[in-house]
Amino acid sequence: MTESAFLKTLNGEVVRPAPVWLMRQAGRYLPEYRATRAEAGGFLDLCFNPALATEVTLQPLRRYGFDAAILFSDILVIPLALGQNVWFEEGEGPRLTPVTTEAELDALSLEGFEERLGPVFEAIRRIKAAAPETPLIGFAGAPWTLATYMINGRGSTDHAVAKLFALEKPDLFRRMIDLLTTAASRFLIAQRAAGVDAVKLFDSWAGAAWPSLFETACQRPATAVRDALDQSAPGTPLIAFPRGAGAALASYAAEVRPAGLAVDSATDLAWAARVVDTACALQGNLDPIFLRGPLDALDRELSRIRAAMDGRPHILNLGHGITPQSKPEVVAHLVERWRSG
Amino acid sequence: MTESAFLKTLNGEVVRPAPVWLMRQAGRYLPEYRATRAEAGGFLDLCFNPALATEVTLQPLRRYGFDAAILFSDILVIPLALGQNVWFEEGEGPRLTPVTTEAELDALSLEGFEERLGPVFEAIRRIKAAAPETPLIGFAGAPWTLATYMINGRGSTDHAVAKLFALEKPDLFRRMIDLLTTAASRFLIAQRAAGVDAVKLFDSWAGAAWPSLFETACQRPATAVRDALDQSAPGTPLIAFPRGAGAALASYAAEVRPAGLAVDSATDLAWAARVVDTACALQGNLDPIFLRGPLDALDRELSRIRAAMDGRPHILNLGHGITPQSKPEVVAHLVERWRSG
Repeated sequence: MTESAFLKTLNGEVVRPAPVWLMRQAGRYLPEYRATRAEAGGFLDLCFNPALATEVTLQPLRRYGFDAAILFSDILVIPLALGQNVWFEEGEGPRLTPVTTEAELDALSLEGFEERLGPVFEAIRRIKAAAPETPLIGFAGAPWTLATYMINGRGSTDHAVAKLFALEKPDLFRRMIDLLTTAASRFLIAQRAAGVDAVKLFDSWAGAAWPSLFETACQRPATAVRDALDQSAPGTPLIAFPRGAGAALASYAAEVRPAGLAVDSATDLAWAARVVDTACALQGNLDPIFLRGPLDALDRELSRIRAAMDGRPHILNLGHGITPQSKPEVVAHLVERWRSG
Repeated sequence: MTESAFLKTLNGEVVRPAPVWLMRQAGRYLPEYRATRAEAGGFLDLCFNPALATEVTLQPLRRYGFDAAILFSDILVIPLALGQNVWFEEGEGPRLTPVTTEAELDALSLEGFEERLGPVFEAIRRIKAAAPETPLIGFAGAPWTLATYMINGRGSTDHAVAKLFALEKPDLFRRMIDLLTTAASRFLIAQRAAGVDAVKLFDSWAGAAWPSLFETACQRPATAVRDALDQSAPGTPLIAFPRGAGAALASYAAEVRPAGLAVDSATDLAWAARVVDTACALQGNLDPIFLRGPLDALDRELSRIRAAMDGRPHILNLGHGITPQSKPEVVAHLVERWRSG
């Protein structure tokens, strides 16, 4: 099998047209996803049903022929597999029984961790069997982002509860981050063993951390995950995504040394190209709003991204997750336009 | 009158201890504010009542002796004075009748703009009369941030409505930004004439803009405001606050050339010190969460900020607005600790 454009890029090669896939390419904007989702029952039922998780992972590939597939799952399967109570309220997002005391943290356990995630690995095997030529990306939530949900018990806009917890219970917070670093590492290593070709670490709320918290709760754990992969699954390309890192993206990239760095929509790719090592592939960073707007605006933005990434290993993607309001026909235009480029 | 530490700093001098004030230092965390607020009736009634606006502006000075006062008002007085319908839903925040069509934009007008803002200028005169020794900061919402509210009709977390408007109606959007640039400039010039010592431009949602939008809707309008001040109110120090600008803070500072640059909580001040001209005062950037947490964590964070600002003109402040849950005694500790070095 010839190595794919996606894996070549993560290996530091400049491939043109640059490979393209989208964050949450399997999502509510696709009617076929909504149909399978309805069949599954709850959202977590879909994540833990290997047949249906395989189906929704493959749907966007059939429709658009993306250069990579990403496992359909959710970042909160880690706290779930550690023993925390996690559920989804329809239309409202995730809910967790908060972990804020030593006893509650002690109750979480890595015993049987991989066993509880068995259906995820089974989905990986099925996806690889069904689409062996397409690189498959596994993923995990990063420790800080997971901690914000685990402490607060739900999403939040200011992350005040988790931030206050980090200040008031620094030892407990450190233990939680350490536990999640181990959990994320083991989860990614096991996904690799099950067959994924690359892995991505999502630190969606990195931008909520003040600089010293970013260093200890985002950058250092990501480095530890990278080290664990190097040791136990050498050669696994890691894409790191510290969303909202701003100028700290430079130090993060230098310290974590991922094969790929996902760049959020607010960050100028030309700046990222200047400050990040040329061997590191940059991924991104179209604002998801362009998938809801006029085609001429999208075309201009793609030209800007293309120009900024001239001569760089680059993977076209969004700089934030796709929204349910995205228009399927605009996604089709994006792929076609990018490749005809 | 000897020039204050605050104004010296905005003039590029390194003053120690560095002056300190807080964004929204008059706010719901203070019992005396809540009492005056209850007396006023609605939130906008407070903003447009010169006696009560003066009172709440002075309250935090009495309690903490901050190095600067900031006019009590709201960024949405600009759309209000342009003729847009603006009101506040108790406990829910601002509501506006959205402006999204050419006719609705045409209905906004700068005729009588300063007259409608008369109570604001009257408050400025009263505050200066009551506290002549304390530098007074006037302010305005920046065009992009105002546009997000004016288009969407309320606050939002993703600003999707305003961003989509910018893509779908680029000419209308440009006209709106131009109108708001003129309005913000005229408002700040008139505040200066009424007696403020410095002005601040709040671009609270700058971080929601993709790079080219940031350039056209945030950076370029801020430069125009700076130019208008230079022309019509020369010598007025401008503090610019493009919150969430990330790495773009460097180009923004170079282009806008403000006397002071407010830095958000996620940005490393040491990095800002490296990339921003040494004549520009840096303001910030304590995360507001530290005003709710233990004192030892606050002390360590203040030490970090102090070290990062060594040899720089610096104004201590928060990197985001204060929250109602902030503890008044922690604010007192902050001021005392900062000044005792």
